[in-house]
Amino acid sequence: MKTAAEYLESMKAYNPRIFLGGRQVNLHENPTTLTVLRANARVYELSQEPDYADIMTAVSPYTGQKVSRNLHLAASTADLEKRAEMATLTSQMLGTCNYRCVGADVINALAGVTWEMNRELGTEYHTRFLKHLKYLQENDLAVSGAVTDAKGDRSKRPAQQEDRDVYVHVVEKKPDGIVVRGAKVSQSGAFAAHETIVIPTMGLREGEENFALAFAVPNGAEGLTYICQYTPFTAERELAPDVKYLGNPLYGQRETCVMVFDNVFIPWEHVFMCGEVQYAGRLIARFAKTHRMNCGGACKVGFADLIIGAAQLAAEYSGVQKAPHIIDKITEMIRISETARACTIAAALKGREEPAGSGFFQPDDIFGNAAKLTIADGFWEIMKWVGDIGGGMAVTMPSELELENPATSGYVRKFMKASAPAEKRLRVAKFIQNWCAGLHGAGTWHGAGSPMAQKMALYALADLEKKKALARNLAGLKDD
Amino acid sequence: MKTAAEYLESMKAYNPRIFLGGRQVNLHENPTTLTVLRANARVYELSQEPDYADIMTAVSPYTGQKVSRNLHLAASTADLEKRAEMATLTSQMLGTCNYRCVGADVINALAGVTWEMNRELGTEYHTRFLKHLKYLQENDLAVSGAVTDAKGDRSKRPAQQEDRDVYVHVVEKKPDGIVVRGAKVSQSGAFAAHETIVIPTMGLREGEENFALAFAVPNGAEGLTYICQYTPFTAERELAPDVKYLGNPLYGQRETCVMVFDNVFIPWEHVFMCGEVQYAGRLIARFAKTHRMNCGGACKVGFADLIIGAAQLAAEYSGVQKAPHIIDKITEMIRISETARACTIAAALKGREEPAGSGFFQPDDIFGNAAKLTIADGFWEIMKWVGDIGGGMAVTMPSELELENPATSGYVRKFMKASAPAEKRLRVAKFIQNWCAGLHGAGTWHGAGSPMAQKMALYALADLEKKKALARNLAGLKDD
Amino acid sequence: MKTAAEYLESMKAYNPRIFLGGRQVNLHENPTTLTVLRANARVYELSQEPDYADIMTAVSPYTGQKVSRNLHLAASTADLEKRAEMATLTSQMLGTCNYRCVGADVINALAGVTWEMNRELGTEYHTRFLKHLKYLQENDLAVSGAVTDAKGDRSKRPAQQEDRDVYVHVVEKKPDGIVVRGAKVSQSGAFAAHETIVIPTMGLREGEENFALAFAVPNGAEGLTYICQYTPFTAERELAPDVKYLGNPLYGQRETCVMVFDNVFIPWEHVFMCGEVQYAGRLIARFAKTHRMNCGGACKVGFADLIIGAAQLAAEYSGVQKAPHIIDKITEMIRISETARACTIAAALKGREEPAGSGFFQPDDIFGNAAKLTIADGFWEIMKWVGDIGGGMAVTMPSELELENPATSGYVRKFMKASAPAEKRLRVAKFIQNWCAGLHGAGTWHGAGSPMAQKMALYALADLEKKKALARNLAGLKDD
Amino acid sequence: MKTAAEYLESMKAYNPRIFLGGRQVNLHENPTTLTVLRANARVYELSQEPDYADIMTAVSPYTGQKVSRNLHLAASTADLEKRAEMATLTSQMLGTCNYRCVGADVINALAGVTWEMNRELGTEYHTRFLKHLKYLQENDLAVSGAVTDAKGDRSKRPAQQEDRDVYVHVVEKKPDGIVVRGAKVSQSGAFAAHETIVIPTMGLREGEENFALAFAVPNGAEGLTYICQYTPFTAERELAPDVKYLGNPLYGQRETCVMVFDNVFIPWEHVFMCGEVQYAGRLIARFAKTHRMNCGGACKVGFADLIIGAAQLAAEYSGVQKAPHIIDKITEMIRISETARACTIAAALKGREEPAGSGFFQPDDIFGNAAKLTIADGFWEIMKWVGDIGGGMAVTMPSELELENPATSGYVRKFMKASAPAEKRLRVAKFIQNWCAGLHGAGTWHGAGSPMAQKMALYALADLEKKKALARNLAGLKDD
Repeated sequence: MKTAAEYLESMKAYNPRIFLGGRQVNLHENPTTLTVLRANARVYELSQEPDYADIMTAVSPYTGQKVSRNLHLAASTADLEKRAEMATLTSQMLGTCNYRCVGADVINALAGVTWEMNRELGTEYHTRFLKHLKYLQENDLAVSGAVTDAKGDRSKRPAQQEDRDVYVHVVEKKPDGIVVRGAKVSQSGAFAAHETIVIPTMGLREGEENFALAFAVPNGAEGLTYICQYTPFTAERELAPDVKYLGNPLYGQRETCVMVFDNVFIPWEHVFMCGEVQYAGRLIARFAKTHRMNCGGACKVGFADLIIGAAQLAAEYSGVQKAPHIIDKITEMIRISETARACTIAAALKGREEPAGSGFFQPDDIFGNAAKLTIADGFWEIMKWVGDIGGGMAVTMPSELELENPATSGYVRKFMKASAPAEKRLRVAKFIQNWCAGLHGAGTWHGAGSPMAQKMALYALADLEKKKALARNLAGLKDD
Repeated sequence: MKTAAEYLESMKAYNPRIFLGGRQVNLHENPTTLTVLRANARVYELSQEPDYADIMTAVSPYTGQKVSRNLHLAASTADLEKRAEMATLTSQMLGTCNYRCVGADVINALAGVTWEMNRELGTEYHTRFLKHLKYLQENDLAVSGAVTDAKGDRSKRPAQQEDRDVYVHVVEKKPDGIVVRGAKVSQSGAFAAHETIVIPTMGLREGEENFALAFAVPNGAEGLTYICQYTPFTAERELAPDVKYLGNPLYGQRETCVMVFDNVFIPWEHVFMCGEVQYAGRLIARFAKTHRMNCGGACKVGFADLIIGAAQLAAEYSGVQKAPHIIDKITEMIRISETARACTIAAALKGREEPAGSGFFQPDDIFGNAAKLTIADGFWEIMKWVGDIGGGMAVTMPSELELENPATSGYVRKFMKASAPAEKRLRVAKFIQNWCAGLHGAGTWHGAGSPMAQKMALYALADLEKKKALARNLAGLKDD
Repeated sequence: MKTAAEYLESMKAYNPRIFLGGRQVNLHENPTTLTVLRANARVYELSQEPDYADIMTAVSPYTGQKVSRNLHLAASTADLEKRAEMATLTSQMLGTCNYRCVGADVINALAGVTWEMNRELGTEYHTRFLKHLKYLQENDLAVSGAVTDAKGDRSKRPAQQEDRDVYVHVVEKKPDGIVVRGAKVSQSGAFAAHETIVIPTMGLREGEENFALAFAVPNGAEGLTYICQYTPFTAERELAPDVKYLGNPLYGQRETCVMVFDNVFIPWEHVFMCGEVQYAGRLIARFAKTHRMNCGGACKVGFADLIIGAAQLAAEYSGVQKAPHIIDKITEMIRISETARACTIAAALKGREEPAGSGFFQPDDIFGNAAKLTIADGFWEIMKWVGDIGGGMAVTMPSELELENPATSGYVRKFMKASAPAEKRLRVAKFIQNWCAGLHGAGTWHGAGSPMAQKMALYALADLEKKKALARNLAGLKDD
Repeated sequence: MKTAAEYLESMKAYNPRIFLGGRQVNLHENPTTLTVLRANARVYELSQEPDYADIMTAVSPYTGQKVSRNLHLAASTADLEKRAEMATLTSQMLGTCNYRCVGADVINALAGVTWEMNRELGTEYHTRFLKHLKYLQENDLAVSGAVTDAKGDRSKRPAQQEDRDVYVHVVEKKPDGIVVRGAKVSQSGAFAAHETIVIPTMGLREGEENFALAFAVPNGAEGLTYICQYTPFTAERELAPDVKYLGNPLYGQRETCVMVFDNVFIPWEHVFMCGEVQYAGRLIARFAKTHRMNCGGACKVGFADLIIGAAQLAAEYSGVQKAPHIIDKITEMIRISETARACTIAAALKGREEPAGSGFFQPDDIFGNAAKLTIADGFWEIMKWVGDIGGGMAVTMPSELELENPATSGYVRKFMKASAPAEKRLRVAKFIQNWCAGLHGAGTWHGAGSPMAQKMALYALADLEKKKALARNLAGLKDD
């Protein structure tokens, strides 16, 4: 398996076409794209650390070797639990995305669906997919996933769009491969991965065959353009004389991009679905199932651990950690995150083989959705409480550069001191700012699908007929 | 194992001294005490049904036979999970207490603590306890538990109380046993059980030896008096010409009593702790651990299933089940109950052997507390939503007796009809009234300890030092 | 103006046909109907007390005399404010409905709408209405209001119902009056009022003329039947040897009935709308406007005052009133109720003349809806907190009759004592039970219309175009 | 009164010592300090617009002329209401602070307290204060307020601090004035005002005379240093080629500073309290009273109007504005903000003269606190909902500079289009980002004091004795 250095070295072969803030930038030099490379490198590093080996790695039945869990197909509930634990661990260590998370869940969803297509339609998708997966595992490649289409007019189906490019689709089928066009939005990490696997964003119907498309594409393929998000945090990082002055120094915010496919050629051996509309819904549903447990739930529990830790530090640095209302707020943050953690554990441990006979495991859907809903809503609560404990300072603090400014450093050291020196108070306040005045509230809300999607799933999944029967039985109501 | 009929027959041997509404009543005749007998009988019945056998029963290592799970010592996480499932199942079937629930959790807590006392202090408590347990299992007896003391002045410890009787304690030690005095309050089911096991309500300190007391007492022992709760529901049941007109016809509300010990003699073979103050805290903590998962969490999930089912029926009977806001409210109830269910599953499946080496299993404490907090708060939400969907009718409906009153039945049938006939609408409304205008809100809040107790537990259990270290690491803060 | 005694005396002339619990009952003897008579008597009494005179009475421009504010047409924002204060005051004093509240708001809505019909259609409704109002004022009569129809199939309009009787309507027009049929449900207080004014439950359209109907009907008119609600509280009152053992001894729960009109004749001089469908929507909208401020908001603030007071007493009686979490919960209840109170004040003081030129005043709609939503949701929170502070005892307490039972009174006095004697603790617990385990949660939710109705109103009333313009202006977006 | 241009011109006379991001900056040139100048200029402009004249101005009894309401002493409840409306209006127009808001509330608090000191202690403070106020009014000066001290060790009183400079205090009294030292933190707008009025941050006791200090200080006085907040938004503004690319183009975020007093000389005629510890508590309490209504409540209602408008725009631009769940979320935002608005109206209209006889008016305290609590908590809800409706785009959108980048503009226009063109969607998304991923959550939480302060106020202000008496009366409890 690759070391962090080997990953970074391997990435030098890639020079993707990236735009950020209106200008083209170099993946290896831009301070923002560097955070993504650094985060990936840290994930490679964690996989090498003995303490985390059982979480970060697994033995592949295809290679017989230890592989990154990001490339592992879950074959048991224990695998699912470790997968969720990986999401929490990387969040704790990065304070941002494990940028391979979507890729991992896409791979797991594709495994089952291609298995079914092989069996039911006689396709070669599963064979191809496993062959490609083995290659990824053997080379320990970083794989990102791309799901959300641009969508255009929300009231129309893909094929009805004035400009059909708002959904990624096949524009030409050739003997050796296909040509695809469209864009994926809010995409995490593609420009720093070795390759990206693309799947449809929704269930599809007859007549929408061109959109029923799953494939792998190498980073920087001909026709690929990445247009990065640009936020105040991008600017702050650009201007900072040193990363140490930033809220999340090394790894920054979750960085996403619009990933544009402008007639990109994909050879058939990297195509895992092409036209099988009846499997698209299943593919995205299985992806959602794992992703709500992992990105929707376990990942944010890791963030919550960081935030609770920071809140407790801030309280101690201000000397208020024993005030009953502070303890109450810390407890409330704990309650929320542990409830979400419990949901991810239940999702993993009540998971089951799906499709039956495949050997592939998927988490329980109800509990995965519950995890996402708990932490999506709870994240705003957690931001509120850390904003409370962090104090006005979390948004009104001067730059830590003042600590080195002879004209102001005396003032800042004098007036920002409480139970801890100014340096510590400013540092933890900056870290808290990163959360309670940053991108993570809305990011958490929408990651793994907006809460409305989870609500619809819960309503569909709940066995209302059984509950009605229970109530009827006890109330003495005869069956209808 | 006993059938329901055998249980009821066996209870005829008991004629406890019970007061209710200011008068002495007969256990076997009073309409309210009958609900408790009926609920217990139903639990015996469920244990005989093949569909529920693996939930309701287990094989005892002491008898080698199938025994009620209410008398089983959990020896694995699978056992813990089945125990939580039993709590949900009995709630679904009874709409009230499994009155043996406290007893089951007390037995599990005593197993570990007496094991430790035997090992560490050389006592015989564990030996006695197992012998007694075997007797209970062999005779398939219904055992209730009694925990909460009267408490008197909340600002004083037991030994400082003006009237020390407000905590159950030893008043005399004799060669053949002890004499105890005091009272347990909010006690569920003692008067309809074969016996009750009593443990202290709190951790104890040196000087409080007389209060460090655990023992079993048969129903109706000399000196025992049960003073029942009396609520509007008690009166309604008393006046009802038939139970079918009541909200929960057969099983009613959760009935409790003040259980008074007026110099009750307990032979030594039924005493499992007497003076070992250092073990009292551990005993109540272990009880809380299991009881928050079961009574605090899983039991109320079963209630929620009933309430959601009833809400859906009410919506269908009124013809509004497709309105988006109705679906949203049903979904919200599902979300809450499934989140709590997830917490109980995580509590069970992340449980562990405790004490180490004992072979006895306890659920995870954090997730058990999360389960209780989720559903305690959520129960008021659920009541709100079922009250919404049930409509004003849930509290303003006329008696179903009007359906049989020639003077009014035509009117009621005519005006209470919607998408379903009046009979059905009234029946489900009455069932809903039982929940949203009944005792269960406050009952759920306080059962297994008030939420403040769970909050204190969560704060104590959370590893804040680890979270601080994670935040420091990422923020670039040096260790303090 | 009538004294309480004169009111009770005057009611003796009425012997309405009332059914309760399946039997016909006598208004003046049944323990439940008596609570309504008593509540009304108390309102008459309050009107005579100098301390409350400015709240409970006003000078009528029609009689030139002081009249009950329940019969007064608001002619200023000060009048609206006093009206809301009356709602709070009567709730504080009764712990249940001012059963003339709906009537008062119906009268105010009718005043403006009949004024418009006279002007726009040349009807005599307003003239009749004022003449009748003067008669009511001169005789200081108790007037109840009836609004909510039985509704039948919720997916159909009144005229489409299989059985059109599920909406009150005209079945015959005669030279001297009309004959009406149908039923009003969840009706408060009609059987203890001198008369009831009936209005449509919803806006109406062409073709629904028979349902566009407003009229006054004397209590016990030929063809009128009242079928009372029956709840556990009804039974408890029936069985109680003395009202002092009940949660709200004198005034009980809010008692409602199904009010059946079986071909009731109404002389034309008591008919205030008959067929003018275009005014029905306006009538119910104006009624809702005042009723959400009064019943929806201010009334429940009065209940909240009682509950907060009881919670504080319970905390003091248990000796826990200084615990930070208790203070926090008391504060939370205060916050909710004072927020709702503020909304009612804003609704009143930002009220305006409506219709313009009429001299009649209506509260602000947005703030009235906000008041209702705040306290409807908040009431469940308040029940939760009083259920927390009240302790398990609020639902598990024995009957206070045990205090007089020689066999148990010693035990109860001994074991229910804390910082206050058992009598006080039991009494306040019983009072709390009345709220947190009673009918008021669902009642508050639906009174003055379910929250969904208020939400729809808020959305319709909010000036979204203005808000969009403000955002566009600041964001630099050109107009669409 | 000054025009916007005259204000900007007048400010040229000031060259305060400002540090931002580790460097000294020029008030008139730095892009961030410019936002504050611009916001102030806009407030001057609004005062000239006829539509807003009655909100933005009032007639001074001291000058007999129209003056800015920012310098007006409220003399009626109507004045208080207009004051609150000014807070809403400026928020709607600026999307950030009216930087004269704290000053206005400080002036109103000082009026009453100096009036009392004159009467009770025979001081000249009130005379001086009115003379100075007249000067401010005649010259229409922008006055900021400074309240919050650095505070140092939170467990110690000011005089016990190791470094007493953490609270602003007198270090020397001279014949012509005093010398002060210390720092105010989270201060809004001092560097762009003509002068700042300083008051103590808390109630004071005997022995703390040096801290009982109120005075006016001109911008840029000798010894004054302003150390500005530095956030990602500061950096983004610094880097932006044009303000039009920013979330709040002209007015930015609320900008604050640490305002350092390093031996600043204040002539006696600008000193309004010096040593009268017994009046300090009253001064801060009255300030809190007005400031919670205005900054705590009404200001954020103006922000909410902007956010709701933006959410509605975003929904329309995406074509989802008719989805029931979108309507529900918009409604929820409306409910929250209108509830807070109602509280500010009640606070103003139930205000009263305070001190009695002074002619000065203060809002009602309970409702002001309720306003702040409603919107502080509600603001996170509002951020959540606008984050929901805004979509992932609100945090993952590319820079609008891409629209002008030939390499990417085609892609962005194509893929960001929905029911509105990409430009509009990006613009409103950027505006939403400013709120839901910005500083306002924590800012709103802490502005006008953290919610814990409001809770303590509510608990202290509520008449619990009266509520207890009401409950006792109804429950039949005799007085204690």
